[in-house]
Amino acid sequence: MSQGKRALNFNAGPAALPLEVLEQAREEFVDFGGTGMSVMEMSHRSKTYEAIHNETAALVRELLGVPEGYDVLFLQGGASLQFAMVPMNFLPKGKAAGYVLTGSWSEKALKEAQRLGETFVAASTKDGHYRRIPGAEEISFGRDSAYLHVTSNNTIFGTQWTRFPDTGSVPLVADMSSDILSRKIDVRQFALIYAGAQKNLGPSGVTLVVVRQDMVERAPEDLPTMLQYRIHAKNNSLYNTPPTFGIYMMGLVLKWVKGQGGVEAVERRNREKAGLIYKVIDDNPDFYLGHAEPTSRSLMNVTFRLPTPELEKEFLDGAKAEGFVGLNGHRSVGGCRASLYNAVPVEHCAALRDYMVEFRKKHA
Amino acid sequence: MSQGKRALNFNAGPAALPLEVLEQAREEFVDFGGTGMSVMEMSHRSKTYEAIHNETAALVRELLGVPEGYDVLFLQGGASLQFAMVPMNFLPKGKAAGYVLTGSWSEKALKEAQRLGETFVAASTKDGHYRRIPGAEEISFGRDSAYLHVTSNNTIFGTQWTRFPDTGSVPLVADMSSDILSRKIDVRQFALIYAGAQKNLGPSGVTLVVVRQDMVERAPEDLPTMLQYRIHAKNNSLYNTPPTFGIYMMGLVLKWVKGQGGVEAVERRNREKAGLIYKVIDDNPDFYLGHAEPTSRSLMNVTFRLPTPELEKEFLDGAKAEGFVGLNGHRSVGGCRASLYNAVPVEHCAALRDYMVEFRKKHA
Ligand SMILES: Cc1ncc(COP(=O)(O)O)c(C=O)c1O
Ligand SMILES: Cc1ncc(COP(=O)(O)O)c(C=O)c1O
Ligand SMILES: [Mg+2]
Ligand SMILES: [Mg+2]
Ligand SMILES: [Mg+2]
Ligand SMILES: [Mg+2]
Repeated sequence: MSQGKRALNFNAGPAALPLEVLEQAREEFVDFGGTGMSVMEMSHRSKTYEAIHNETAALVRELLGVPEGYDVLFLQGGASLQFAMVPMNFLPKGKAAGYVLTGSWSEKALKEAQRLGETFVAASTKDGHYRRIPGAEEISFGRDSAYLHVTSNNTIFGTQWTRFPDTGSVPLVADMSSDILSRKIDVRQFALIYAGAQKNLGPSGVTLVVVRQDMVERAPEDLPTMLQYRIHAKNNSLYNTPPTFGIYMMGLVLKWVKGQGGVEAVERRNREKAGLIYKVIDDNPDFYLGHAEPTSRSLMNVTFRLPTPELEKEFLDGAKAEGFVGLNGHRSVGGCRASLYNAVPVEHCAALRDYMVEFRKKHA
Repeated sequence: MSQGKRALNFNAGPAALPLEVLEQAREEFVDFGGTGMSVMEMSHRSKTYEAIHNETAALVRELLGVPEGYDVLFLQGGASLQFAMVPMNFLPKGKAAGYVLTGSWSEKALKEAQRLGETFVAASTKDGHYRRIPGAEEISFGRDSAYLHVTSNNTIFGTQWTRFPDTGSVPLVADMSSDILSRKIDVRQFALIYAGAQKNLGPSGVTLVVVRQDMVERAPEDLPTMLQYRIHAKNNSLYNTPPTFGIYMMGLVLKWVKGQGGVEAVERRNREKAGLIYKVIDDNPDFYLGHAEPTSRSLMNVTFRLPTPELEKEFLDGAKAEGFVGLNGHRSVGGCRASLYNAVPVEHCAALRDYMVEFRKKHA
């Protein structure tokens, strides 16, 4: 396959994967390492698969900087199942969990927790159409809160936390679905991090969870087996059959991140990529209407509108004709969105920048 | 890749997939249908992916003979999560659910239901080491039971139901993880069928559920969103991001089944395959000690022991040296097991037969 035919893929998730990763997976798709089997055909109890599984977990630890005292889990059900598992495991009767609302996904996480226990809104920027992340001084919660939940990157509205609140002894839980491994974070700040794989980590069908062991141990034991972090932690995510091929793909993606120079190098590139698009927005403030306030801008999802629905349609149709994919805004908000996850090459971002500049000129 | 290098794969799951399917998936792995993207990189809301998704569901309907009034769902979490979802959705307070115990997986299903509501053992063949399936007259349940749960094929013990009990108005629920699509069944007998994909349907990470709509409608609405069949049924299994690549692979496997002549043809081949191995057992009853009683024998998992642990080790080591994979019995019971799922070629079964005959001769 020639590189020229590759789509300019700005999908919000499932999203672009590194071409090198896809090519390697294709190479060994039918016969992995001379075993005469696809990775898909291997027992999850086999030595070959367990090596893949453990290597993937070790790479998560290394690249994300997961310290001792935390478990790395590969689960199923997507981030949406975590919306329920978090309160099932960590919201006991008599306590309340705080949710910071910064977009649609935070709202969904809160809604799910409301079915399961006491909750409160610790902060919300909904009134301002989720254009920004609240400041530390706007966030309120009690010292006895069960946990505080944040969405590190808001995929739909295009905002991202830069500094996470210091919650003291209150466990901080973060949905990092759309910016995991895109920048350096300090895992020690968090009691639990979860992320659907399908943006920065691999194909859909795997959910990465990084969780502090004392949290796991505190959780109730009478939950359904599959919904207890404890069970998956005890069994190295092999209590039942895991999504083996997805975990293998995640391993390849992580090796690619390492080969790129690790998270710092990837972050630098992500800043460069986002910079290209935000510059066009800043240079044309009356034409490309950025949704996020500049200090809350996401490096992963750049959201913007054009002055009229007609122009938006022309912009999106023209982009499609030129091989761009996934530039429509989320179906719930409309407009335009460019998702610039780790695997999106700088060159594709430059191509989008050029298209935006040209389109602007045509309508000057 | 040459066919000669293919492993003789008798894994219990994840298990062998058809070589043609793997080769086609490899062919279009990096660029699906000229889109410039892998299936893994496509939005689950895109037209291309939705066509794959809907085609896979339509093939399930066609090949399994799913009538109107039933939903076909693609879920995550494996059969193990269904152990909990079934009682969460269908075991209301004041009712009791009956479980027929025919092996380890039935026991696990029961254990999970016990956490969630009232249960009873409708029949059990545990005393006889799960060598057989109980007869209809041995199964007892009330007319007001919430449902009756059976495991259609017992992967670990190697037994399989031939005729399912007539439960009248009591909903019959079946775990068909290890024999789905291996033989003709009448879906109308069942209120709900579930199966992890990783034996007969595709890679791990997708769970197929076929469920009668009136059951779905009756279930409580205050369950966690992701654990309600209702939500997935309403949203065509696209409530959140499904395991897209696994569903695509399942579609390819289903097309392969269709190309083989459909379920009837596959069943005929499965009978032939199992017949080859059971014949060696029957011809050498003092050497190959079949676990299942002949009338309860599974066409999918042939389980047997040798006269001594030393012989078993020699048998398994020798098999491994000759390229056989997955012949060890389940870690909980030991012995030997050959899993002969749909994708295992007749020739591989013949090779195993030959190896067994030779091994017997050497130790005559
Ligand atoms: C921030 C965030 N949280 C949660 C989700 C839901 O993820 P899933 O589809 O894996 O359940 C998404 C999906 O885009 C997301 O972006
Ligand atoms: C009959 C049966 N039920 C349930 C399971 C558990 O399936 P999963 O690993 O998908 O949870 C298995 C796994 O082998 C099985 O054979
Ligand atoms: Mg959002
Ligand atoms: Mg989104
Ligand atoms: Mg069993
Ligand atoms: Mg098994």
